[in-house]
Amino acid sequence: MLFSDISVLDDTFHCQAHKYVATEGNKIAYVGDEMPEGDFGEIYDGHNRFLMSGLVNAHSHAAMTLLRGYAENLPLDRWLNERVFPFEDKIQNEDAYYSTMLAIAEMLRTGTTSFTDMYFFSEYVLKAVGESGIKCNFSRAITSFSDCNISEIPSFRESETLVKTYHNAFDGRIKIDMSLHAEYTNRRMVIEQFAESVKAHNLRAHVHLSETEKEHEECKQRHGGLTPTELFQACGVFDVPTTAAHCVWVTDSDMDILKAKGVTVATNPASNLKLGSGVCNTYAMLRKGINVALGTDSVASNNNLDMFKEMYLCALLPKGVYRRPDIVSERDVLKMATQNGYFAQGRTDCGMVKAGNRADLIVVDLDTVHMCPHNDTVNNLVYAASGEDVLLTMADGKVLYKDGVYTTIDIEKVKHEVEARTKRIQNEVNAHA
Amino acid sequence: MLFSDISVLDDTFHCQAHKYVATEGNKIAYVGDEMPEGDFGEIYDGHNRFLMSGLVNAHSHAAMTLLRGYAENLPLDRWLNERVFPFEDKIQNEDAYYSTMLAIAEMLRTGTTSFTDMYFFSEYVLKAVGESGIKCNFSRAITSFSDCNISEIPSFRESETLVKTYHNAFDGRIKIDMSLHAEYTNRRMVIEQFAESVKAHNLRAHVHLSETEKEHEECKQRHGGLTPTELFQACGVFDVPTTAAHCVWVTDSDMDILKAKGVTVATNPASNLKLGSGVCNTYAMLRKGINVALGTDSVASNNNLDMFKEMYLCALLPKGVYRRPDIVSERDVLKMATQNGYFAQGRTDCGMVKAGNRADLIVVDLDTVHMCPHNDTVNNLVYAASGEDVLLTMADGKVLYKDGVYTTIDIEKVKHEVEARTKRIQNEVNAHA
Repeated sequence: MLFSDISVLDDTFHCQAHKYVATEGNKIAYVGDEMPEGDFGEIYDGHNRFLMSGLVNAHSHAAMTLLRGYAENLPLDRWLNERVFPFEDKIQNEDAYYSTMLAIAEMLRTGTTSFTDMYFFSEYVLKAVGESGIKCNFSRAITSFSDCNISEIPSFRESETLVKTYHNAFDGRIKIDMSLHAEYTNRRMVIEQFAESVKAHNLRAHVHLSETEKEHEECKQRHGGLTPTELFQACGVFDVPTTAAHCVWVTDSDMDILKAKGVTVATNPASNLKLGSGVCNTYAMLRKGINVALGTDSVASNNNLDMFKEMYLCALLPKGVYRRPDIVSERDVLKMATQNGYFAQGRTDCGMVKAGNRADLIVVDLDTVHMCPHNDTVNNLVYAASGEDVLLTMADGKVLYKDGVYTTIDIEKVKHEVEARTKRIQNEVNAHA
Repeated sequence: MLFSDISVLDDTFHCQAHKYVATEGNKIAYVGDEMPEGDFGEIYDGHNRFLMSGLVNAHSHAAMTLLRGYAENLPLDRWLNERVFPFEDKIQNEDAYYSTMLAIAEMLRTGTTSFTDMYFFSEYVLKAVGESGIKCNFSRAITSFSDCNISEIPSFRESETLVKTYHNAFDGRIKIDMSLHAEYTNRRMVIEQFAESVKAHNLRAHVHLSETEKEHEECKQRHGGLTPTELFQACGVFDVPTTAAHCVWVTDSDMDILKAKGVTVATNPASNLKLGSGVCNTYAMLRKGINVALGTDSVASNNNLDMFKEMYLCALLPKGVYRRPDIVSERDVLKMATQNGYFAQGRTDCGMVKAGNRADLIVVDLDTVHMCPHNDTVNNLVYAASGEDVLLTMADGKVLYKDGVYTTIDIEKVKHEVEARTKRIQNEVNAHA
């Protein structure tokens, strides 16, 4: 495809007008000021359009999309025990497939080209990823509530099987990470074995870390004053490339550890607000040079998967909470939502509109009332645009969404299945109650 | 118009499916379970559609839309003095007209049917309001930097003229309020005369109140320990129906005054975050029974006029900041964005889908990926929907926006004019610098 005379987000997160960008196969073949020679297939008229890297949702549980709007206004423990767990208990394999496909449709619609997911129903999630054309680092969450050898834990054995079957499948679109659910859902001896295993497999780790004050404080009580970050470091978890989701309650010295060990923080501002967990100090993290990426968490605590909403929140929140309008700029959050997310996934040939990179690209409409006037397109992109402004989403050079049409997803069937399956689950939950 | 078999937001902010709603002239003629008899003109198929009251933007400066994305990442004083004031200085009458028309187009696009505006260029703002069909309570901001008789102040004299010419114009679509810009931009003797004058004219007042800590604290220094709220009360301002914008720094006893005097708080969560002002404690205000309404402030600190974004922020922020997921529900913010806003404007026959009320109505698309599944439509409306999901906006029974088409606004001309005028102003500012 040849994007003709289009505005482009450059490597420094500034807008360059009147560019030409060509893709060939799964790569970006050309970025320049002149129409390139050669045949790149379809010519896309870039007038009043903006081209940039696709967005990376750095922390999600896609298959939970069945729960959208189901559990609201409850404290975390009641939210989990009274609403989420009884519902999840009734989810079956095919439910997870359709729920994930709906999640992927929403992500593609709003410009996400890759996501880092942690859940179960692994094969059904990965089936949806494979069919849809999106990219995903997937991990099966490991939990352990008693001391044991990690190889006895079914979720660990499933993780190992996933690695053999799916790691780097679909030309690398799928990567399998190893996931330790969290400190509070695991035993120290299992955490240590987990760290060894991820290292031995040469994989990446995905964990929940200091999401709530309760989790953070209770860890210190359980582990002789160690914070979750200190415990994970002591167990060797951070000796492999790790994405740590949330990090709302990490201390200043925890942050120093995260920086020293190259851990990516996946911040989830909407979910942290909605569940009353607090506000992640991304400002301090950026100053320390931590790789901060951006995620939605699941729709059960969000309630959607729109990275534009997440960017907006991520840029606004620190300004208001720390009363500093000059911190966490629109360029900071654009980097978090693109380059930093891909870096966390180990996809170093993605995240920039650059010849030779994978063609993970989105086109944003500049010709809307809320993007006018164009004093500064990049400011408008973060503070005024909406995920609904995405006109085209492409991963590995393949158009997956364009102008309301999905090329790989039968969206009407998916919506119908999700509605029907949600009703069935609700009925089962109510009958059981 | 007859909305057929449509889901409706009822008076208690719950969703009622399969309803019929008819409008006749500027009123809602029928709401019920059966198709009504009689001819109501066009029949609107309500399948997968949601009908509710139009939204009220309770605090705006619409003509500032020219500044979208122009001033970012700056502390308030530099934001004002280095960016906003030099730009505003170059705005001419026709610029304000087109800028307001663009603002109105964005408001209609995202479901706002009425707004409470404070600015200058009054006649040009009101020309756009009149032509567009939207509703507006407009006030000309009064400032006074030395002691004087209020009748000597040009902005006060202009306010009096506006009242004579425009108050209740267009069958009540336009109402003129009186506006005291803020405590820090006025002298006590003028504030006292202002209060007397608004009372004598039997009008409503619109003020900025305790937006920043600096404003709040400096007022106490200037006025013998009185907070802005206490000063305004002492001067009699709150003896008339008043909308007080922001109220980020009001104290608990200030809130008691606001409640006792029936003052509406217009909270502006996005603007307060973006300018680093802080977070308004809407939770405490709702508990005290204060009429809290919701506004966008101007796009210069937002950067748009989408009340769906504002509802989302307003529901999420207190949960995260006070770490209470069970406070400020989706129903609270829907009330703030509809009934409470209309109440503040003195429009008691608006804000609910009820026979006899004015037909200020919007239709929201339920058939999108991000509204699926429908576990709870009202939750989805606040936490998952976007202003872009609005399909139809009607004020006083007249369709002003439907499926991408404006019936009263030449949107291409307006966008073209705003772009050209913004460029001219930027050039003038740069030449002057």
